[in-house]
Amino acid sequence: MTYTPATQDQLLAIHANAGMAELAASERFAAAEPDMVEAIVEGIGQFAAGEWAPLDRVGDLTGAALDEGRVRLPDGFAEAYRHYVEQGWNAIAGPAAYGGQGLPFTLACNVLENLGTANMAFSLLPMLSVGATEALEHHGSEAQKAKYLPKLVSGEWSGTMNLTEPQAGSDLGALRTTATPIAEGEHAGKYRIAGQKIFITWGEHDLAGNIVHLVLARLPDAPAGSRGISLFLVPKYHVADDGSLGARNDVRCVSLEHKLGIHASPTCVMSYGDNGECIGELVGAENRGLMAMFTMMNNARINVGNQGVQVGERATQAALAYARDRVQSARAGSPDKSPVPIVEHPDVRRMLLRMRALTEGMRALLYHTAGQVDRGTLGDEEAARRAEVLVPMIKAWGTDAGVEVASLGIQVHGGMGFIEETGAAQIYRDARIAPIYEGTNGIQAADLVTRKLGLGDGAVFAALMEDIVRDAGEEDALADLARTCRAIGEWMRDDATLDDRLAGSVPFCTMSAVAVAGWQLTRQLRAIEGGAFGGLAAAKQASVRFFLDRVVPEAAGLKASATAGAEGLYAIDADQLAG
Amino acid sequence: MTYTPATQDQLLAIHANAGMAELAASERFAAAEPDMVEAIVEGIGQFAAGEWAPLDRVGDLTGAALDEGRVRLPDGFAEAYRHYVEQGWNAIAGPAAYGGQGLPFTLACNVLENLGTANMAFSLLPMLSVGATEALEHHGSEAQKAKYLPKLVSGEWSGTMNLTEPQAGSDLGALRTTATPIAEGEHAGKYRIAGQKIFITWGEHDLAGNIVHLVLARLPDAPAGSRGISLFLVPKYHVADDGSLGARNDVRCVSLEHKLGIHASPTCVMSYGDNGECIGELVGAENRGLMAMFTMMNNARINVGNQGVQVGERATQAALAYARDRVQSARAGSPDKSPVPIVEHPDVRRMLLRMRALTEGMRALLYHTAGQVDRGTLGDEEAARRAEVLVPMIKAWGTDAGVEVASLGIQVHGGMGFIEETGAAQIYRDARIAPIYEGTNGIQAADLVTRKLGLGDGAVFAALMEDIVRDAGEEDALADLARTCRAIGEWMRDDATLDDRLAGSVPFCTMSAVAVAGWQLTRQLRAIEGGAFGGLAAAKQASVRFFLDRVVPEAAGLKASATAGAEGLYAIDADQLAG
Repeated sequence: MTYTPATQDQLLAIHANAGMAELAASERFAAAEPDMVEAIVEGIGQFAAGEWAPLDRVGDLTGAALDEGRVRLPDGFAEAYRHYVEQGWNAIAGPAAYGGQGLPFTLACNVLENLGTANMAFSLLPMLSVGATEALEHHGSEAQKAKYLPKLVSGEWSGTMNLTEPQAGSDLGALRTTATPIAEGEHAGKYRIAGQKIFITWGEHDLAGNIVHLVLARLPDAPAGSRGISLFLVPKYHVADDGSLGARNDVRCVSLEHKLGIHASPTCVMSYGDNGECIGELVGAENRGLMAMFTMMNNARINVGNQGVQVGERATQAALAYARDRVQSARAGSPDKSPVPIVEHPDVRRMLLRMRALTEGMRALLYHTAGQVDRGTLGDEEAARRAEVLVPMIKAWGTDAGVEVASLGIQVHGGMGFIEETGAAQIYRDARIAPIYEGTNGIQAADLVTRKLGLGDGAVFAALMEDIVRDAGEEDALADLARTCRAIGEWMRDDATLDDRLAGSVPFCTMSAVAVAGWQLTRQLRAIEGGAFGGLAAAKQASVRFFLDRVVPEAAGLKASATAGAEGLYAIDADQLAG
Repeated sequence: MTYTPATQDQLLAIHANAGMAELAASERFAAAEPDMVEAIVEGIGQFAAGEWAPLDRVGDLTGAALDEGRVRLPDGFAEAYRHYVEQGWNAIAGPAAYGGQGLPFTLACNVLENLGTANMAFSLLPMLSVGATEALEHHGSEAQKAKYLPKLVSGEWSGTMNLTEPQAGSDLGALRTTATPIAEGEHAGKYRIAGQKIFITWGEHDLAGNIVHLVLARLPDAPAGSRGISLFLVPKYHVADDGSLGARNDVRCVSLEHKLGIHASPTCVMSYGDNGECIGELVGAENRGLMAMFTMMNNARINVGNQGVQVGERATQAALAYARDRVQSARAGSPDKSPVPIVEHPDVRRMLLRMRALTEGMRALLYHTAGQVDRGTLGDEEAARRAEVLVPMIKAWGTDAGVEVASLGIQVHGGMGFIEETGAAQIYRDARIAPIYEGTNGIQAADLVTRKLGLGDGAVFAALMEDIVRDAGEEDALADLARTCRAIGEWMRDDATLDDRLAGSVPFCTMSAVAVAGWQLTRQLRAIEGGAFGGLAAAKQASVRFFLDRVVPEAAGLKASATAGAEGLYAIDADQLAG
């Protein structure tokens, strides 16, 4: 199963939803001129489809394996990663001061979109490195940046995020890993790290020369809970001041999880300081580790939302190829009784158009969000705050819709969809992690109805919905949905209890995301009417029509669920709920 | 992971939705008196949970394996099947003339519900045997019945349904397996069968003494298409007239599929007549094989819809157990900052109540449908026709909702849900087959908007929706949904093109199913108000409230999708759709 990069639709979204031309008008992003953007989007698409996609199936079948403390990947992964680094794809949006190209985040999103469509499990390696890079960029000392950033930016070294512990998942305040200051000797000024972390993505492997672990831990006498957490840098191999690699640090992968999907991504249990010799450096201020994590969480969540687009694109292409190939039954009611490819049957076509409409809607929302992040980087505070509101939408709805599209992909394949060899099942299994990690979708929705709805006393969310209403023109269903969302937002802020808000948070998040995605799809249509991307016109009109005629009204149907409140949820206690 | 049989809720549904007391008032079902019903429901629940559930995980991990033509199941399966047969569970609804108990189909549904909740893959063995039993019961000769039915009814022998071929899936008219009459010799009057069948569930195994394959094939010079298909009985071992087993027939399993789920259910490629020696008997009239299949299809589809209930129950119990055990974070906004079990967080509770509400709604619809089938057996033509309308609803919506509940089950588990050891992932993988087999859900929905909507010139469907409106009382959302369904049904029959109907068929089927399920849930509440099943009162009120307040309005939100028509689906051709 191969695929064709969605280059034209990506370029359309980068143009119409991210507003790349405006970004490139700034000094900072001046390099992002049309030729450069096109070269990147085409280049990474070809690279990903050509070198990473062929490893997707073997990665699923063979997966990552732990062999005496070393994590082995199937043949080909190391070379494909080396090519990725050598060709400079990892450095697209990295800081120019450390060897990066300093291009917009929007283009880094495009690199990840293509890598993840080709091979979602593999794409987690660079995706996690971004988190470590950003942590150091924003919170590291100059010495730390000089020592670690150039190799992280290039991709020669990879990075990990070590947050979760068995008792501390969504509640990071409960973590117990300790960091003890070292007063004397070779490592004076550094810390001895001790503890165990779980769910560490690409926590161990030998595709990169070194692994930079960012680890949340507690200092002695740190305050309890989330205010007592600090951030530490723990390299797999010690790094001398001249940049040369030293001895192995006292950190190891003690087991790999056996997962539903993304088998090629080693999900590690990491043990720090089994021999009391794990050395780490403090990053940023003491007890401010969680704050440091939050500053990079927005982009990480966008990157996970991106995975909804990735699985959506892959599933849609696979289903379309099958439906055009598989001949079965004549068209119902047709005088011609010859069997036709199943793509001609109305319900199969409905499923395929739904897959396309959802995928393109996710993509429009993704690049719009990324574009707002880039405007924020340029100093546009309004855009920065709008991006914050959009983040839970693309993460939660994007990943839920990704699972839906993957499931429809199986359905289009019929019985063959349930057979692993076909590949549709792998997409469905891989897709299922995205609504969970980087903050479950419930946590995203809670973020939307608490912090994000509160931004500007509600004005940021309200302005977003008003923009949609203003632009909707004759699209009544879209305007109605945006008005409904604005009204629910006001009710949540002004009248609802916290429990009521949380009880309706997930359906409300879906409604809001669909409103924004629908809006951004209409902006794509307008861009096409303006003369760009004419080759997409007919297909785009069909998928946008589907989104506006069907997906938008369905989202409006969530109103009762969003506003039903919490009372009914607590009418019985947990014992009664269990029957 | 074990579970507790949902005995009380099953008894409630058998009472309130199937109307068992009225069935038992008939002569035919007089044995189904309350004590007997309770003994069956409690007994099969305990048996399934005690003996079949412990094999569920090893069945997933080890699965069925092909070893030189023999299919091996993990240790324990053979013994657990033998106990099932010895205790008489297979014979519950079988014809009394052949050793069955002749009890209502409703109780056979209950047996399957419990077996499938315990071990879905294993439960396919008896489920498929039912098809073979019914085929012979309704279409076999007296000699065939006498020879095969007693052992099929008891479960000593199992049965299979051989329909699909590589080029003939949903379109059975395309099948090519041949049957050649034998004029002379030992097998005179029988047929030589030749061909290959795929997706044959439990096509080969050694848990039963013999396997009775029901095989669709073409006679020489048979008309093309679906009018030229006949039904044949092909035993794994020949059976002498005295019932003793003879030599092995020329039929073998040549490979097993590697599937997303239900690993313990061997999905076989069956080869008939490799050596030209496969002998079969004609069942029923020549060229009437497809008709014979259709007569037993309704019950088979109900049995697949039942699997939605099964995975729903299993997933709900697993998620509830986890959510009550997993302590994480304080309640938002609570003055008490101690972490609480996640079942106390509003969005987790929303997911759990949704799982419960959907599962109980599916169950209410399942037993209502089964009860209508039983009334039909007693000669109530109106009930028989209503059952026909309900079949696509329970099959399509039931299995879609089953997948949704299984997915929510993963979400409640958070990161642990993606780890295979937890068991939530297996439920999600197993659940995914049910929307596909026994007629994809698209085919169910097509059946609803064509044949079923046409019954009585639309009066059967309209009367169903009118019953809901009449009973709805103060439940405006439910009455509105039923009225909307009735109106869409009229539009589909009177004004819509066939393509328009098919384009809206799946959302319309969901809307209709939710209306009926909501109605049947309110009947459960009324039964509880009437004094029965008081222990369920509080929990039932909460889950029904959830269903009416949230699930019903969401279904109403599908109206636009059900009525949007086909034009937008064909605005582009397949090339343009592929981009």
